[in-house]
Amino acid sequence: MKFWIGVDVGGTNIVCGAVDRDGRVLHTIKAPTDAAAGSAAVLDKISDMCRQVAAELGSTDELAAVGIGTPGLVDPRAGISIYSTNLNWRNVPVAAEISARLGVPVWIDNDVRNYVFGEARYGAGRSFDTVLGLTVGTGIAAAIVRRGELFYGHKAMAGEIGHGPREGIDVPCSCGLTGCLEAVASASGMVREAKRLISQGRDTVLTEWYPGERLADLAAADLSRAMDTGDPLATEVVTRAGTLIGRALEPAVHLISPDVIIVGGGAAMAGERLLGPMREALFPRLLPDFRSELQIRTAELHDDAGIIGSAMSAMARAR
Amino acid sequence: MKFWIGVDVGGTNIVCGAVDRDGRVLHTIKAPTDAAAGSAAVLDKISDMCRQVAAELGSTDELAAVGIGTPGLVDPRAGISIYSTNLNWRNVPVAAEISARLGVPVWIDNDVRNYVFGEARYGAGRSFDTVLGLTVGTGIAAAIVRRGELFYGHKAMAGEIGHGPREGIDVPCSCGLTGCLEAVASASGMVREAKRLISQGRDTVLTEWYPGERLADLAAADLSRAMDTGDPLATEVVTRAGTLIGRALEPAVHLISPDVIIVGGGAAMAGERLLGPMREALFPRLLPDFRSELQIRTAELHDDAGIIGSAMSAMARAR
Repeated sequence: MKFWIGVDVGGTNIVCGAVDRDGRVLHTIKAPTDAAAGSAAVLDKISDMCRQVAAELGSTDELAAVGIGTPGLVDPRAGISIYSTNLNWRNVPVAAEISARLGVPVWIDNDVRNYVFGEARYGAGRSFDTVLGLTVGTGIAAAIVRRGELFYGHKAMAGEIGHGPREGIDVPCSCGLTGCLEAVASASGMVREAKRLISQGRDTVLTEWYPGERLADLAAADLSRAMDTGDPLATEVVTRAGTLIGRALEPAVHLISPDVIIVGGGAAMAGERLLGPMREALFPRLLPDFRSELQIRTAELHDDAGIIGSAMSAMARAR
Repeated sequence: MKFWIGVDVGGTNIVCGAVDRDGRVLHTIKAPTDAAAGSAAVLDKISDMCRQVAAELGSTDELAAVGIGTPGLVDPRAGISIYSTNLNWRNVPVAAEISARLGVPVWIDNDVRNYVFGEARYGAGRSFDTVLGLTVGTGIAAAIVRRGELFYGHKAMAGEIGHGPREGIDVPCSCGLTGCLEAVASASGMVREAKRLISQGRDTVLTEWYPGERLADLAAADLSRAMDTGDPLATEVVTRAGTLIGRALEPAVHLISPDVIIVGGGAAMAGERLLGPMREALFPRLLPDFRSELQIRTAELHDDAGIIGSAMSAMARAR
């Protein structure tokens, strides 16, 4: 049986999985990225992981192609990672290098696009026409899939919904602009906002959970937990993030007319705590035709979306 | 020689033109729409105009297909005008009706999409990858063309850049929302803003040109003329419109990554008076990768864009 391998290369871990032609995950393995060892070492590791995954499947199975998702700017046609801050890569010819090592076609794309492609075709977006997929994690980014096809834009840069000055945000962003959604509404942005309010002396259960210097360990998931105890600070931070994401989605919805918005990434674990305020901010700002059929859903495939999307993106291209 | 007919159906006039396979306009005619006569009469008129255009070409020329652009919401696949406020139409099966009358394939699409399609393939966007085309006229709307293909979105509604609450705008819009770009930065919005400032007693050359009740005749083109005399009121209105359009374009650019923005429609005649403030508002709000290659251009084909786009859209589909 033919199978495809999808690889999700993150700043911390590499996940590598075999996927069948119907988008079912057959087998996955995970290993630390160790980006500090340099791009050549990481490419070797990806190749070794692909070989391992293939070896651990049945001997009659045949690897058809490999799809790889990496953070940062990618040139999918040239197969190059233009740059990735997380991996400290610049112009790494990923597709050619891995293809030379494995002897099969290899495709590379941005990790968020592969994730949204997976969700759009095999997950929460599979019965919809136009999918706007959003990942809310360390950063905030989006991708657009229309009738199963990704929308790339010039230089494959489409989907930067996390950056640009937004009304009601006055925090400087690491990108150099001020007022970016990512700075306050991403998982890390919410944690930063919580810490900022705590430093102003605000009362919260979070300082009981993480007293003194242990506050450095505060994670976005803690905000959800604290919100469930009725903590006003956590509720304020998560609700505000949802509201700001909802407002930022308004021009996106009017411009591309999605029938579903899929919210994935770590912060999507907050579920309705985040999606409720998103809906409340978004829907009253839309023209009636744009809100009548629009659904907002959380991702279904979670960690598998990147693997499935990368593998199935390779399948779609290698045809 | 084969030719295609493009028809641009406006609230005031119908323009009907023959176009060759290279997008060159061979012959056009124009007639009042007379929408009050009802949709059947308008469909008859469109058919008659198509026959007339065909008859006025050489006898060896062969009509291959007809493309029609209408204002409002269109279902291009079903060939139906879902609704058009300007024409007072609701669920008019335009394609089937005209096709039955003429005996050739007929396609219908939204007029702005056909206009932008024409500009993207044969006008100001022809050497670009991802085109965001904007018409600034009675309303403000957009369309997206990526590598020669229109992006439709769910229910073919993509491109509503003129609506949605925008920072710095507090005027109610005819759509029911408050703060829409269209309400203050469209040609009619600018005229309304100028009248509002005049009613507050502001001094302007416009009240010399249009004294008393004649102010009702004020048009957007007058604002450009007044601006050229150094009139502060006209300068304020046009500059503010450009600034607000530039700000509204920021999320659109980050979401779809165009390499060119084409500004067409009546107000585009203002040229750099409008485009200058647009650029000044837009570029500092963009990530460096999004501003390094982005161009903002005025439409090149003007009135022909709708004809060429409608005809060539029919040619592309009838293949």
